[in-house]
Amino acid sequence: MKVSQLGEFGLIEYLKNRFYLEEVGDDTACVKVGDSLLLLTCDTLLEGRHFLDSYPMSAVGWKGVSACVSDLIANGGKPLYLLVTLLLPDVELKKVDELYEGITRACEFYGVKLVGGNVVKSERLGIDFFGVGLTERFVGRGGAKVGDGIFVSGTLGDSLAGLELILMEKRHYEDFELRLIERHLRPTARIDYIAHISKYANASMDISDGLSSDIQHMAKRSGLRFSIQKEKLPLSRELLEYAKRHGKDPYSYALRGGEDYQLLFTHPPSRINPFLDMTQIGTVEEGEGVFLDGAPLEAQGFDHFKS
Amino acid sequence: MKVSQLGEFGLIEYLKNRFYLEEVGDDTACVKVGDSLLLLTCDTLLEGRHFLDSYPMSAVGWKGVSACVSDLIANGGKPLYLLVTLLLPDVELKKVDELYEGITRACEFYGVKLVGGNVVKSERLGIDFFGVGLTERFVGRGGAKVGDGIFVSGTLGDSLAGLELILMEKRHYEDFELRLIERHLRPTARIDYIAHISKYANASMDISDGLSSDIQHMAKRSGLRFSIQKEKLPLSRELLEYAKRHGKDPYSYALRGGEDYQLLFTHPPSRINPFLDMTQIGTVEEGEGVFLDGAPLEAQGFDHFKS
Repeated sequence: MKVSQLGEFGLIEYLKNRFYLEEVGDDTACVKVGDSLLLLTCDTLLEGRHFLDSYPMSAVGWKGVSACVSDLIANGGKPLYLLVTLLLPDVELKKVDELYEGITRACEFYGVKLVGGNVVKSERLGIDFFGVGLTERFVGRGGAKVGDGIFVSGTLGDSLAGLELILMEKRHYEDFELRLIERHLRPTARIDYIAHISKYANASMDISDGLSSDIQHMAKRSGLRFSIQKEKLPLSRELLEYAKRHGKDPYSYALRGGEDYQLLFTHPPSRINPFLDMTQIGTVEEGEGVFLDGAPLEAQGFDHFKS
Repeated sequence: MKVSQLGEFGLIEYLKNRFYLEEVGDDTACVKVGDSLLLLTCDTLLEGRHFLDSYPMSAVGWKGVSACVSDLIANGGKPLYLLVTLLLPDVELKKVDELYEGITRACEFYGVKLVGGNVVKSERLGIDFFGVGLTERFVGRGGAKVGDGIFVSGTLGDSLAGLELILMEKRHYEDFELRLIERHLRPTARIDYIAHISKYANASMDISDGLSSDIQHMAKRSGLRFSIQKEKLPLSRELLEYAKRHGKDPYSYALRGGEDYQLLFTHPPSRINPFLDMTQIGTVEEGEGVFLDGAPLEAQGFDHFKS
């Protein structure tokens, strides 16, 4: 059998069972060292797969750091340290410089320290980040409780619309289009949610593969039924405008669009914090599976191995 | 300017200065979390560059873990946790299985726990390891003192001879040849040296690029002169036999051969531990540079970007 027949999640599941990696399955691994609970995670961006050669290199660096930091936040952690492995073809030094500038700027923004790394010659450009965070309480995917509200931060689907706009290679982009493109190129990990997640969330993860795909993992690991409503999905004005112009369904973007790096989490509805841009999109119930307006929801996210 | 014009070490030096990464330059980064001193490191193996398609996949997994663990030990750390990013083409599942088996076996051997990872589709097979260790006292490259003895663990040059033997693609290998090949395919990180390094070493690193190259970094960062003697370099019987058969200079293998994952460290000669296979190869003196039998020694190691 080939890896592509299993797909990304099938492969992880296979390796988990085959090698007894019970802990694997959250955005980060939680380990105790001394009296500290540490979160460890890694995230990779490869040219041609996660970004295009035409992207500003500083954006690629920014995005890589954001993806890694987002995982730490999703599990209730404060990001502390980062290491980066650069896979480098024989490119212009300027390109590496820009990439590193994006990395260091993002590190400053997130208050994270870049403490080390590695450069390796490679045919394709790539960056692999390792992140270390500190938490008071680990919040994984499996802790949702019956009666919890299901929440997301920010708006969904913007990054996918931004990617489509980039691929159109238009000569001129309007303001709302540039904002969508920016959300694809330089997503912001939700550091403003760290305290909220670590204090109140029963289950949490970041939305990197698309809501319809990621929420399945949370429902499965929590062993409960996740019921969400389409009309509750938070959409940006920019996405609505984009969908209108191109005759698309904006909800489809919110459901399948990945790389928004928003958070998906559950807790009692009473824990809503009005100062955060969170939206309740549904409720955790007895049972299993994910339901959208009462009908089973299929994962529409991106599987790197199958596609 | 292109990356190849700078070379691997030139690039690291450039990035260090350009982005004020003062701490970068040891095998690991040392950070304090709570009351614990943690060591963080990453190591990458790429197909075609660090291993060949024909290698047993379990050996590749073993070697990747060993390289990462070796960095932690070199700085006085006890290896604790590992994460692994798999860069995977659409290969047979069997191949991934064997790779993972090598990884988990090595983890068991070194008493390290594999707590997480990542799979990413890629054109070339690769593995990137992230290691976390705990130390009582960080031992870097820069701490050598005048009067210290310069020591190495084990024997040097075996891995390079093993690589050459593999590339010969012989039908039949003799026993001593198989042992050299084994040292290339499945090097053992020196976990037996953890206590010795963390207690007594003033400076320490692992020899992954070749003694003549790695020792330059230690001399430079310590700001002292490293004088070593050729005849003191520890050679295995297998390497001596190999050199004799092929009319080669075994000392050249010991000086330029990388991937032995032996340790290079300094401390007062009185600290020699007769129960460890350590050899004093020279002395730390006032001055600068590295001298072999009184003559300046050039780095003959492998630069991934220049070659």
